[in-house]
Amino acid sequence: MRSDGREPGQLRPVQMAINVNKYAEGSVLIEAGDTRVLCTASLEERVPPFMKGQGKGWVTAEYSMLPRATHTRNQRESQRGKVNGRTMEIQRLIGRALRSVVNLQALGERTLTLDCDVLQADGGTRTTAITGSYVALALAIDKLAKTVNFPVYPLTDFLASTSVGVIDGEPRLDLHYEEDSRAKVDMNLVMTGSGKFVELQGTGEDEPFSREELNALLELGEKGIRELITIQKETLGAAGARIGTVQA
Amino acid sequence: MRSDGREPGQLRPVQMAINVNKYAEGSVLIEAGDTRVLCTASLEERVPPFMKGQGKGWVTAEYSMLPRATHTRNQRESQRGKVNGRTMEIQRLIGRALRSVVNLQALGERTLTLDCDVLQADGGTRTTAITGSYVALALAIDKLAKTVNFPVYPLTDFLASTSVGVIDGEPRLDLHYEEDSRAKVDMNLVMTGSGKFVELQGTGEDEPFSREELNALLELGEKGIRELITIQKETLGAAGARIGTVQA
Amino acid sequence: MRSDGREPGQLRPVQMAINVNKYAEGSVLIEAGDTRVLCTASLEERVPPFMKGQGKGWVTAEYSMLPRATHTRNQRESQRGKVNGRTMEIQRLIGRALRSVVNLQALGERTLTLDCDVLQADGGTRTTAITGSYVALALAIDKLAKTVNFPVYPLTDFLASTSVGVIDGEPRLDLHYEEDSRAKVDMNLVMTGSGKFVELQGTGEDEPFSREELNALLELGEKGIRELITIQKETLGAAGARIGTVQA
Amino acid sequence: MRSDGREPGQLRPVQMAINVNKYAEGSVLIEAGDTRVLCTASLEERVPPFMKGQGKGWVTAEYSMLPRATHTRNQRESQRGKVNGRTMEIQRLIGRALRSVVNLQALGERTLTLDCDVLQADGGTRTTAITGSYVALALAIDKLAKTVNFPVYPLTDFLASTSVGVIDGEPRLDLHYEEDSRAKVDMNLVMTGSGKFVELQGTGEDEPFSREELNALLELGEKGIRELITIQKETLGAAGARIGTVQA
Amino acid sequence: MRSDGREPGQLRPVQMAINVNKYAEGSVLIEAGDTRVLCTASLEERVPPFMKGQGKGWVTAEYSMLPRATHTRNQRESQRGKVNGRTMEIQRLIGRALRSVVNLQALGERTLTLDCDVLQADGGTRTTAITGSYVALALAIDKLAKTVNFPVYPLTDFLASTSVGVIDGEPRLDLHYEEDSRAKVDMNLVMTGSGKFVELQGTGEDEPFSREELNALLELGEKGIRELITIQKETLGAAGARIGTVQA
Amino acid sequence: MRSDGREPGQLRPVQMAINVNKYAEGSVLIEAGDTRVLCTASLEERVPPFMKGQGKGWVTAEYSMLPRATHTRNQRESQRGKVNGRTMEIQRLIGRALRSVVNLQALGERTLTLDCDVLQADGGTRTTAITGSYVALALAIDKLAKTVNFPVYPLTDFLASTSVGVIDGEPRLDLHYEEDSRAKVDMNLVMTGSGKFVELQGTGEDEPFSREELNALLELGEKGIRELITIQKETLGAAGARIGTVQA
Repeated sequence: MRSDGREPGQLRPVQMAINVNKYAEGSVLIEAGDTRVLCTASLEERVPPFMKGQGKGWVTAEYSMLPRATHTRNQRESQRGKVNGRTMEIQRLIGRALRSVVNLQALGERTLTLDCDVLQADGGTRTTAITGSYVALALAIDKLAKTVNFPVYPLTDFLASTSVGVIDGEPRLDLHYEEDSRAKVDMNLVMTGSGKFVELQGTGEDEPFSREELNALLELGEKGIRELITIQKETLGAAGARIGTVQA
Repeated sequence: MRSDGREPGQLRPVQMAINVNKYAEGSVLIEAGDTRVLCTASLEERVPPFMKGQGKGWVTAEYSMLPRATHTRNQRESQRGKVNGRTMEIQRLIGRALRSVVNLQALGERTLTLDCDVLQADGGTRTTAITGSYVALALAIDKLAKTVNFPVYPLTDFLASTSVGVIDGEPRLDLHYEEDSRAKVDMNLVMTGSGKFVELQGTGEDEPFSREELNALLELGEKGIRELITIQKETLGAAGARIGTVQA
Repeated sequence: MRSDGREPGQLRPVQMAINVNKYAEGSVLIEAGDTRVLCTASLEERVPPFMKGQGKGWVTAEYSMLPRATHTRNQRESQRGKVNGRTMEIQRLIGRALRSVVNLQALGERTLTLDCDVLQADGGTRTTAITGSYVALALAIDKLAKTVNFPVYPLTDFLASTSVGVIDGEPRLDLHYEEDSRAKVDMNLVMTGSGKFVELQGTGEDEPFSREELNALLELGEKGIRELITIQKETLGAAGARIGTVQA
Repeated sequence: MRSDGREPGQLRPVQMAINVNKYAEGSVLIEAGDTRVLCTASLEERVPPFMKGQGKGWVTAEYSMLPRATHTRNQRESQRGKVNGRTMEIQRLIGRALRSVVNLQALGERTLTLDCDVLQADGGTRTTAITGSYVALALAIDKLAKTVNFPVYPLTDFLASTSVGVIDGEPRLDLHYEEDSRAKVDMNLVMTGSGKFVELQGTGEDEPFSREELNALLELGEKGIRELITIQKETLGAAGARIGTVQA
Repeated sequence: MRSDGREPGQLRPVQMAINVNKYAEGSVLIEAGDTRVLCTASLEERVPPFMKGQGKGWVTAEYSMLPRATHTRNQRESQRGKVNGRTMEIQRLIGRALRSVVNLQALGERTLTLDCDVLQADGGTRTTAITGSYVALALAIDKLAKTVNFPVYPLTDFLASTSVGVIDGEPRLDLHYEEDSRAKVDMNLVMTGSGKFVELQGTGEDEPFSREELNALLELGEKGIRELITIQKETLGAAGARIGTVQA
Repeated sequence: MRSDGREPGQLRPVQMAINVNKYAEGSVLIEAGDTRVLCTASLEERVPPFMKGQGKGWVTAEYSMLPRATHTRNQRESQRGKVNGRTMEIQRLIGRALRSVVNLQALGERTLTLDCDVLQADGGTRTTAITGSYVALALAIDKLAKTVNFPVYPLTDFLASTSVGVIDGEPRLDLHYEEDSRAKVDMNLVMTGSGKFVELQGTGEDEPFSREELNALLELGEKGIRELITIQKETLGAAGARIGTVQA
């Protein structure tokens, strides 16, 4: 049994409190076990310079950990004067993942920026940030759709993410920090509501993995993501009703 | 009457939720109206290079606003690659204020770092950060005192902060954002439990102020700080019992 | 008696040599005891981006110490690659103080940048920089008024600054470095020719101060500033004649 | 047929010129089609601070493109003053991949830094950099093993990398630039000589992909990597003889 | 005799391989002994902001050493976050030298950027970079002249560079690294095809030099540059035919 | 005749006020015409890391222009966050030039840092900075020699610098700004009291120059430097008596 009493294929308890920020167009405080991420979606009626004049929108993300989100305090990136490689890698991943379910043409020349700030970290901060920021994004688009008449709804599918890994030879779903640091193989999956892969990042730095192990991990991950998408649907309720639809 | 229905000399409702972070030695989520600041105290058993070998401790603070803490999104300082002047000014103020009630000799060669992260801003973020980080600091020292035998308790007094200002010719306590941006005179006060001034920063960029106006503002501020310290005492309970004492 | 033989309420000798730079629109080399600051005012016929199109002008300041302005050499900020918090705090203060006596509407879409470079430091560099840069500003506006017909003169009042503090229990005016480093309470005041406060920054990091101490310090500061403004008036002569006037 | 005449499952022609740098402990100029990367391995008899005193070695990588490695000139990162997210992501990947086949304990307190400088880019620069820098690493360890008596040889297996993707609905191996920019799905694989996965990074930003597509891509990638490792073995010759062995 | 067997007035063997980069408008891999520099010329149909609207072109250069171009690995400037003084000095020199033989008016509003990347360094990297980037520049202008009808050819003369120095009291031409580090006097010369000086930088940090020594060094340098220009002419062939001409 | 009435071979009037800074070990305010540079020498009883343990000292320099030293205000380098290439080039030159007349062995493990801050610029700031900082250096070494018994005096010779150039076909000495910006050829010379060259930097970006022109410029420069060294000797008086001597 796992150190927190879960089955190998069991997610941590997930909570999503929505509209927790009075200014943001969409916001969620997502908790997966002791991992807690505040996600806000900010809308701007313009696109970055490299997108100008194409009639398309843009979705981007930023990720940061509060200094004491972790066991020992980390130096603040603003004080160091630069963003480290891990942060860059994560925020590029979040942005790419979310864009895969946004019809940028349908969105029009607008930018949605998803800020994912980790208030407390216990493993899986990047996957939790994706799952949460998707909800913030959906809320912002739902709000926008109340004033803009979208012939095609800009959000084309649901999207969630989880991690899987091999610990003590056993494939497990949704690793917490202590498992994550012991995992020989570590994989992050992002999948859509229709069950397709958007991102798949597996690493076996400590021990290369076989095709069979890969298959076992993919099974676990797919199951976890289906459950997370069910929770997203409940959380969004009516605000998620038009996702993937063309307006009649 | 004020736009949120308060009397000129009335504070906004204040909430302090303690121990909200499972790693930090002390933590508080403080809310003053719609201003919400997460304060954590982190303990390290060493001091910065410039303090080494003096047998004394150090207390310092960092302050940051989440990008969407405000009406429109602000660029993240870590992305800009530098901390702006306002942030520096505020975190220097918080550190100086807290050190005024810490006996660094009694603390010994330890550093306490107070991180104040503004989750939502509606005026008075620096004063709220001081009032909240004081509580986080007190919790961390109380925790430390359970394992270290302090002959003199390192925390010498209570400490809180509020703002006052002149709006439409009327002196008011604890300005929210809309008042703050309209105030002709704007003053931040930091005071101790024994009613003395630690910091007093008044500015009349838009309209210089007279000695009489100054006196009226000081009255209001002193009253507000007394009330905040009462709330701090209730919040801390037993954890605040030894503040200002010499151990028998 | 003070280490340099002054009475508690006595300013250091002040010298202001004007027009010391052949390019700047206004310039002053101000000396207060051994503190020496070169202040230049530079005029540009445009405003920063955030002020564009409002028909108003802007006044801003930059402050810097030469590396060997102090007892031991300090690293040059350009070499460190960033401006430290103290510098930012001071230059924000100088800019705010000067703007309080400039009618930005009357100035029109122009920027005046005050550069305050400390050639030698012996305490009170920020207050000396304010007192000196006011004179450089007044000279630049006087020069400008020879070619621009201002219906309302853009400079609305005189302005000077000094420091006060409590040393060995005694309130003293215009602290030099050795006093400044020993002061329990330290306060900087900026006041106008009409005797009103523009900035008031008091700090009791080493020892909180009472309302009575505050009052004693304010008395001393007001007296010192009145004397500094008298010197400014003599220094400016005809160039200060229109300050605070509406053109007939 | 592909624009350069290849079959879907065919690699581009690969050349590896070894010992092209007279100072580096190992060096390779690798060409895969028109992609050309200079890889050098530099040995230092010390480890970075975070590894000190553990008796283990370290392997790390840096990646950079010359400004005119591409169709249009890119700004040099040293001039921009920071390394961009893509570069960081790639160099973290190269380091992680190489470490998976190095026994850091056996290496001892030494650092091997792999510099991968792209002289000309035509797609697949990161996978080519991994395949090439593995050879530079193997040469450096072979050279080191001439003076150090390793009971266990520090290099535990062969390692190479290639890309696969879906273009016009067809899975293809080793994409060149024009294919890469049109690919709906894009995946980079790193595998060992024993046929296990070290890294697997697939992205379907433009179009999510199914489990079947994933499987087809994995087949292609495995085949390509087997071929690359054959070339590595020929290139290394005797210098690769002890890889994965325990010294008798 | 010199450590590599050369006479005091003998150049190292020089090789110039042209068109080694498939994207750049001009490119050369130049080798002078063991010093190897990749030079590319990139054309843009615009000028930097400070040159706009003057109807003139611009020529600029960037210089960099790969980390392991030298005996021991140097930190990458992009990782340090800033370009060091030596690099800046060299790239300013290359740009200035090349501009001296370009008629910017004749070039029209275009920018040519010369990138000089040192693959391997054994002394004389800056002079080799000048000699090589001249050839890359000439190739780019020749290519441009095939589509643009230049009444006056933008390249007005040939240009090359070499170093001279005093080692063990003997003036020598084209120093390699070991000589360069022992030279008491060290001088870099840039001269035109018509035998005039463009740049002359001599330094006697270790031992000041007399007028006689200067004269001896100038003789050697002039001879070396004449030989380099002969090689440039052979290398360019027809591509250099119009240099210094006015189109009939 | 020149625009300021000088003969082609005439220096501008030179003033050197010494000991103008009460903290620095040596200081000079040097004026050459309207160019005004404040030079301070700071002594530290240690050397930079790369010089440690060699029993030798170090001499280094920093150079900066105040923002309004010039006709129009320049952005402060500390605000830009980096030192530009011109500044780096100049401060490297000053350091190299001064070290050529310092016996670092005799100096012992000490660092002398020369800060050259340009208060007003009218051409020739780098040469004036060298001439002035030499005097500050000599004062600091003279002061040091009062407490340290140097068997060999660390300063081995006098040293000064001037510029020469060709304007309207005429070789001229000591160019002011307006001449400098029109000069076709521009050369900076640094020479010792014994008439030898330390640095020689000539550039003909606008028009290459012949050997004859070079010779004419060298004559002029040598004459100017002899005159500057005469002024340095008068300024230093007894403080310069031991320069170039071995203590009896």
